[in-house]
Amino acid sequence: MEDKFSDLRINAERFQQDFEAISHIGSSGDGGVDRPAFSDAHLAARTWFRQRIEDAGLTFRLDGAGNHSGFLKCSAENAPTLLLGSHLDSVPKGGRFDGALGVLAALEVLRVIHEAGLHLPTNLEAIDFSDEEGRLVGLMGSNAVAGSLSEKDLAKPAGGRSALLDGLLRAGLNEAGILSAKRDPSTLAGFLELHIEQGPRLEQESLDIGVVTTMTGICLYNLKFTGRADHSGTTPMHQRLDASLGASNFVLSASTMVTEKFLNCTVNVGSIELMPGASNIVPQCASLILELRAPELDTLNRLESTLLELANHKAGYHKLKLEAEFIEKHPPNTMDIGVQGVIRNAASSLGLSHINLYSGAFHDAEVIARICPAGMIFVPSQGGASHSPREFTPWKDCMNGANVLLNATLRLATSQIN
Amino acid sequence: MEDKFSDLRINAERFQQDFEAISHIGSSGDGGVDRPAFSDAHLAARTWFRQRIEDAGLTFRLDGAGNHSGFLKCSAENAPTLLLGSHLDSVPKGGRFDGALGVLAALEVLRVIHEAGLHLPTNLEAIDFSDEEGRLVGLMGSNAVAGSLSEKDLAKPAGGRSALLDGLLRAGLNEAGILSAKRDPSTLAGFLELHIEQGPRLEQESLDIGVVTTMTGICLYNLKFTGRADHSGTTPMHQRLDASLGASNFVLSASTMVTEKFLNCTVNVGSIELMPGASNIVPQCASLILELRAPELDTLNRLESTLLELANHKAGYHKLKLEAEFIEKHPPNTMDIGVQGVIRNAASSLGLSHINLYSGAFHDAEVIARICPAGMIFVPSQGGASHSPREFTPWKDCMNGANVLLNATLRLATSQIN
Repeated sequence: MEDKFSDLRINAERFQQDFEAISHIGSSGDGGVDRPAFSDAHLAARTWFRQRIEDAGLTFRLDGAGNHSGFLKCSAENAPTLLLGSHLDSVPKGGRFDGALGVLAALEVLRVIHEAGLHLPTNLEAIDFSDEEGRLVGLMGSNAVAGSLSEKDLAKPAGGRSALLDGLLRAGLNEAGILSAKRDPSTLAGFLELHIEQGPRLEQESLDIGVVTTMTGICLYNLKFTGRADHSGTTPMHQRLDASLGASNFVLSASTMVTEKFLNCTVNVGSIELMPGASNIVPQCASLILELRAPELDTLNRLESTLLELANHKAGYHKLKLEAEFIEKHPPNTMDIGVQGVIRNAASSLGLSHINLYSGAFHDAEVIARICPAGMIFVPSQGGASHSPREFTPWKDCMNGANVLLNATLRLATSQIN
Repeated sequence: MEDKFSDLRINAERFQQDFEAISHIGSSGDGGVDRPAFSDAHLAARTWFRQRIEDAGLTFRLDGAGNHSGFLKCSAENAPTLLLGSHLDSVPKGGRFDGALGVLAALEVLRVIHEAGLHLPTNLEAIDFSDEEGRLVGLMGSNAVAGSLSEKDLAKPAGGRSALLDGLLRAGLNEAGILSAKRDPSTLAGFLELHIEQGPRLEQESLDIGVVTTMTGICLYNLKFTGRADHSGTTPMHQRLDASLGASNFVLSASTMVTEKFLNCTVNVGSIELMPGASNIVPQCASLILELRAPELDTLNRLESTLLELANHKAGYHKLKLEAEFIEKHPPNTMDIGVQGVIRNAASSLGLSHINLYSGAFHDAEVIARICPAGMIFVPSQGGASHSPREFTPWKDCMNGANVLLNATLRLATSQIN
């Protein structure tokens, strides 16, 4: 890398001021933020981000999917663009680092390069992808850019149809616009995303930087155990077909089985609904969302069949009927090998320790990887806390991550992929 | 009993026509009815009942708690009134016999006695108690009549404050009116309620009539298991504090324990809520409603302490915090001994087999027993099904029950308590 590039560093004070400012928008008062996609707090964060882009002398852009970005022309008009970014929305009662760190670091990288007056082979763009966390569609902004959304996806979105329509209205968007946000892959030079690890591995091994190699595969099912509704006071215990027993037995057994027999895999039942839901009626149905993740495809498939078999077994044991409704499945994805090397070199050149990691979470980078070389930089998460107000990354690590993002950006922009 | 009384019988055809008519109001199309208190269907059923009262030449009465009744003057103006009745509301997606059978039988008894032109030592009243099933307050109408409701009860009703206010508005009622429905005990000669058993005992022993001796005691708690919210993909299984595991383990173990070790007792968990409730967040809290019932007070107390200890043990096992919020407790109640004898004699004089039973469910009779001698007549429930569209009682048994109600009414009204 040229000398004039390798000396560039993030403006620590400005970056930190930005981070503190965004952490106040939708603050839950306990260190976390509550900024679900297109909520009042999220819309306020978007307005704030737009203002920061304009204050920095960058060109503000808004696409039909609600993605906000700041554009920095460092090259010819028709040169490809290197995208940097993440997302400003959060899960309900989430943490202040997840997503926001990557968006603000991207903005800061563009400001530093803008101030340095560098001319590069690519243009640069710092982007805030809309609805990453799945309140409406999930990874909506990045999927729209990648052209991975269809009218069908919007007709049956994860958060329900009315939440989507309401959200779009609140943000001044519409469905046709979402599909129009698709970009021509030839216009993109690549994508880099800085993000907290959301797991404990970097902290436990006292390492600075994680280079993401693979995104864990995921599979979701709606499992419905059905028994019989009965009066809870008059129906003898041994005559009941209580759906809650099948669901409870499955939840317990699935957790034990994955903990003991599926290394690096996870299972989660984040919601259970008993129906009809009255204190004096034996539950007829117990409906739950089963989520499972594995870093390799073979393991994901084996985990899926094992857990479905387990659910069937538990239903049979309690004389219940089981319906397993498939929701979605995403096989594990490998990040671009060349970009992984660029991130490793960037970290090494800054004297930072690094390790290869798989990501247990979904990210916009996984989606954008479909249309251009993409990579992810992880920084440590204290205690591995994530999707929680306890989420915390020491500021030193945030700075390390932002400087790796800056250095890797310059390497990628100047095509030093190896 | 005088001969002119003992020959009186229910008008089978009219009674059945009424029962078929009311079963259509709020019919769920599968043999059940959906008539939660003050829903459109319930209001329609109330209007229909009022019309039947007026068609029969009885005096229609409405009190401030929304109780509808038909009054038959068979005695002096200041003579006490013998109340007969039950309720026309249902649980969501409930059965067509629970409550409605008792109200229509009471109406039919009054019509038969009216037609016979009998003069009795008491007046008679067929009553439909409002909100028995607990959508708003639970046993609201009978508690109002018994003077057991306070402003405090209405300030924190079982179904929530807004549901109560909305329900009252829909029915043209108000809170002050509810409290005004209290009756002077000296005006009441007694209360009789015909009801389906809601359990399998009469059917299993091929018996016609159950004479209720005791109402099972009940105790309700809100149990809240609290762990920690974490990202479901990035938090290793063994590092989680998953609240769903404590709740699941408790639900399973409580059911097994009560089935094996607490004869004639029941436990039910009719609703569970996981929070924050997202598929990709490890549940921080699992909140459930625990309901337990036992026919003797000692057993109820032992069951309560055993299950709370079990919940604590399961919380500790999964490293969770447990909060047990007491909701309410009602000790088992004995029905009036004299009225029990009247019902037995009535059944015997009609050649019907009978047995003493405790009731596993709450009933208006339990509440009215606080202010006057009260008794309950049970008829068989096929398969013990209850609070379900599968609820079914053969018509022969309904007729038997209504004739026992008529016969017992005449015995009670003429003070043949033994």
